[in-house]
Order: sequence, then structure tokens, then C-alpha cells
Amino acid sequence: MQTQSENACFGGTQGVYTHASSACACDMTFGLFLPEEARDGPVPVLWYLSGLTCTHENAMTKAGAQTWAAEQGIALVFPDTSPRGEAVADDEAYDLGKGAGFYVNATQDPWAPHFRMWDYVAEELPALLGENFAIDLDRQAITGHSMGGHGALTLAMGLPGRFRSVSAFAPIAHPSASDWGRKQLGAYLGEDEATWAAHDATLLMREAGFDGPVLTDTGTKDQFLDLLKPEALFEAAAARRQQGTMRMQPGYDHSYFFVSTFMEDHVAFHAEALYG
Amino acid sequence: MQTQSENACFGGTQGVYTHASSACACDMTFGLFLPEEARDGPVPVLWYLSGLTCTHENAMTKAGAQTWAAEQGIALVFPDTSPRGEAVADDEAYDLGKGAGFYVNATQDPWAPHFRMWDYVAEELPALLGENFAIDLDRQAITGHSMGGHGALTLAMGLPGRFRSVSAFAPIAHPSASDWGRKQLGAYLGEDEATWAAHDATLLMREAGFDGPVLTDTGTKDQFLDLLKPEALFEAAAARRQQGTMRMQPGYDHSYFFVSTFMEDHVAFHAEALYG
Repeated sequence: MQTQSENACFGGTQGVYTHASSACACDMTFGLFLPEEARDGPVPVLWYLSGLTCTHENAMTKAGAQTWAAEQGIALVFPDTSPRGEAVADDEAYDLGKGAGFYVNATQDPWAPHFRMWDYVAEELPALLGENFAIDLDRQAITGHSMGGHGALTLAMGLPGRFRSVSAFAPIAHPSASDWGRKQLGAYLGEDEATWAAHDATLLMREAGFDGPVLTDTGTKDQFLDLLKPEALFEAAAARRQQGTMRMQPGYDHSYFFVSTFMEDHVAFHAEALYG
Repeated sequence: MQTQSENACFGGTQGVYTHASSACACDMTFGLFLPEEARDGPVPVLWYLSGLTCTHENAMTKAGAQTWAAEQGIALVFPDTSPRGEAVADDEAYDLGKGAGFYVNATQDPWAPHFRMWDYVAEELPALLGENFAIDLDRQAITGHSMGGHGALTLAMGLPGRFRSVSAFAPIAHPSASDWGRKQLGAYLGEDEATWAAHDATLLMREAGFDGPVLTDTGTKDQFLDLLKPEALFEAAAARRQQGTMRMQPGYDHSYFFVSTFMEDHVAFHAEALYG
């Protein structure tokens, strides 16, 4: 593992690290914020999964999450959104290939050799964090934005017992019924839609829900509402009697100005679960 | 004036606007955060001047200032750092020409026709803000980072009575004695160093100081300490018995991770002066 940078930040350290990933069969880079408390021993961790076109860097520099994670003594991990490098397949569209891994293990060519973001985020990266940093893997929570909100919700519901709480900012809530989803799940997983169900938050909510608290925020002026389909997830959550809070925020759009506005709420929500 | 974008942000609006600048003889773009309170009438304003290579956008997306400005009911203005456009002279170096206006009115060619950032920030942009937005020009404060910290300190001391408070993050504190300064002041103002004195915070502090509170933060691990020369400004401020707080922050560098860490303190400092 190589240290790309480490900056003092809110009393802790914002680091960027690169490592050879076996899941993705390429070098992967992630951001990790460790609060001051990590100097004295393992701290709980909040995963932040990013959206289409992002790298590890966008949320790390624009979401303002360190402010509140430092206050709560929580680590933040910012994974990349896809495998990277010249050997990795790509597509001209912004929403397929690099920057658009959708947090699945691809089974279809040309994606299958590298696009294994589910395994990367669910297995390889947590193990790496636990071995190399003062991270308490018994206290994990997860959030994300847009495609990353989809990732957070599907990982949380797909790995029962792993995360104490899950939240999402403007998640892609029902990808198997959206152009943000059908295209990518078809490309990565093939045309058998039965294989998509494990990667659709609304279907997972209908099927099993989440064994902890859920928080989602979506802006009423989000320019992608028709693709996000929050109404599907809201309906499924209420029908299941899922413990949680599903909010529509008046006037907010899809940008990081929206994400940063509600970040304090989300980190406080996760802190309550992580320290409860 | 053209609206480039407006995003809901912490209950207010983060806007980006472009206008034909007479001071710079080109189109100029700036960011403006208006808190919720601006809907009910004029609010005080905190100027944030950015550093070398930045546009209006860097601090607007990375400094986290809106969090605290919203809490305090203060507007934030993020000017660009130089004139822009094909007609504007430039230099291959990152620290001269575009992105490096140094907040002076250039008198030397090829810079003189457009590089009038002092007039732009001191005269044209405040007038434009007062005419078009709910900004109370009787309650202004100013801050900035690096070259922008230099700008904040020199504007505050050079315009007595204009700003109620001034702060700076890692300011270029003594440019006439630094390679971040001698090159640019020489290029923009010519070789007569007497003309530089109005643009050197340390010399201004020795000469007259500031008629209000001053706050500066600089990291002990700042990679540019030899160019910033905080020791010169510290010495001058103490010798003058300047009201103020000059801090060296252990472990912090020159990045926005440093700026965002101490932004809450700076906004609270200015709020006290603006509402006092």
C-alpha cells in the first residue's frame, strides 16, 4: 500500500492510499479520514460511496463530512467508483465503465475481469482497513450519493449484520426500473433480470429491508428525480414498516451543495447507531 | 449580469454570476452565498479571496464556509483571482498572469490593460453586489487564503473603515521580501519598490495597522512557510500592539483541509465583529 498524501484535517488526518486490488485486478485508490481519537485505538467507520463520474476525491474535498466525523470520532472511507487503468474496459458514456461501477460484480464481458466493486467494497477494502489502520470493523455504517446511495443501500441490505445504520443522499432507488440502472445492470450482469434484484434497493426493501435505522434525503428540485425514483423506495419502506426516515428536501438539487447541507444530520444519525 | 448557476445550500443559495467588468475590461465570474436571512433584507458580507491558480470556484466548493455562514446569517462572496479571457495577457508560470492577479492594479505592460484586481474587489464588485443582492455594505469583513490572505490583509489595511474585521489563512505575509511577491509586484507594478509597499501586509502593519480585530492561521507544516513569512507579520503586529490573534497550527499544511478545519473559527470571529 502506498501513501499518496496525508493532510492534517480537523485534528485528524485525511489520507489517500493506493494498493494492488485483487478484487478489481488493478491498482485502486481510496481516501481515509482518521479522527484524532484513532491515535488512541480503533474507531468506528462510516463508508461514503460516491456517484457517477466521481473518484475517491470528490466527496473527500466537497462533502464537508470530516467536520462532523471529527466531532463524533468516526473514520470516513471514500472508495473509488470503479476499477482504473489502461487495461480496464471503458465506454464513451459517462454512466458506464470507469467511474460507473454500480457496486456490482460484473459477470459479462468486457466488464467481468475488473468490475468487481461489490467484492472490493464488501470484502477486500474492509480487510485492508482493519489490517492497516485503527478501524473497528465491528462498528461500521454506510452512506453514499446517487449511484453511491444505491451502493450504500444495497450493500447494507445485502450484508445483514455488517452495518449498524445506512443512509443515502439522492440514491438511485430503483435501478431495475430506471435508465440509471437497466443499462448498467444489463451490461454488467446480463439480460437475466433475476440477477439484478440483489442490486435494487427498492426490491431489497420489499424483500427483506434493513435490520437497523435508515435515513435518506432527496431534493425536490433534483434534476434527476425521474431516474432516482425515490417514490418507489418510500413506498417499499413504508409497506415493510422499515425503521427509518425518508425525507424530501425542498428546493435542493443533486449537487454537493445539497450533500454538504445535510451531512451533519447524516453523520449524527450514524454516530447514534455506532455508539449506541 | 448572467446567472451561471444557483444551488440551494444550507437553507440559502449558492450562486455563480458573470458580468462585464469595467475594472478588468473583461467578463468576470464570482460566487455568492446568500443565507436564508437575505430573503428578509440585507445581510452582512464576508469576502473570501482565493490563492494562486484558483478561480471563484475552489473555496466555494472546498472551504466549507457556507456551513458556518448559514449559521451566522452572513453572505459570502468568492471573487476570481485574475482577469480572464483570450484577450488577457498570461505567463507560463502558475504564479504570474491568469490565476495570479495578486490583488493589485498593474501599471506595467502587458498586464496594465486588464490586471486591476484591486479596483475590481475594492470598488466594482461591492457596488455590483449592493445593487443586485440583499447585501449590507455597511457590514463587511474579509478573509482569504495564501495570495488571497495577502489580498485580504492589504485591502483591509489599505481601505480604513471598509472592513470591520480581517482574517487570513496562510497569507503571503511579506511579499516584497519573498519569491511569492517580488516577481509579481515587479511584473505588475514595476521595479520601483516604493510602489509595492501598499501591497505588503507586513509593511502596512508596520506603517498603520488595522483599525479592528485581526486573526491569522498558518500551519506549522505548511510547505510554503519560507515564502509566506508569517514571522514578519507576527513581529510587525506585536510591535504595533495590533489588536488580534496570530496562530501557528501544529501539523497543518497549505491545503483546503487546513482551511476548512479552521473556517468555523474564522466565520465566528467575523460574525462577532459584524454583529457587534
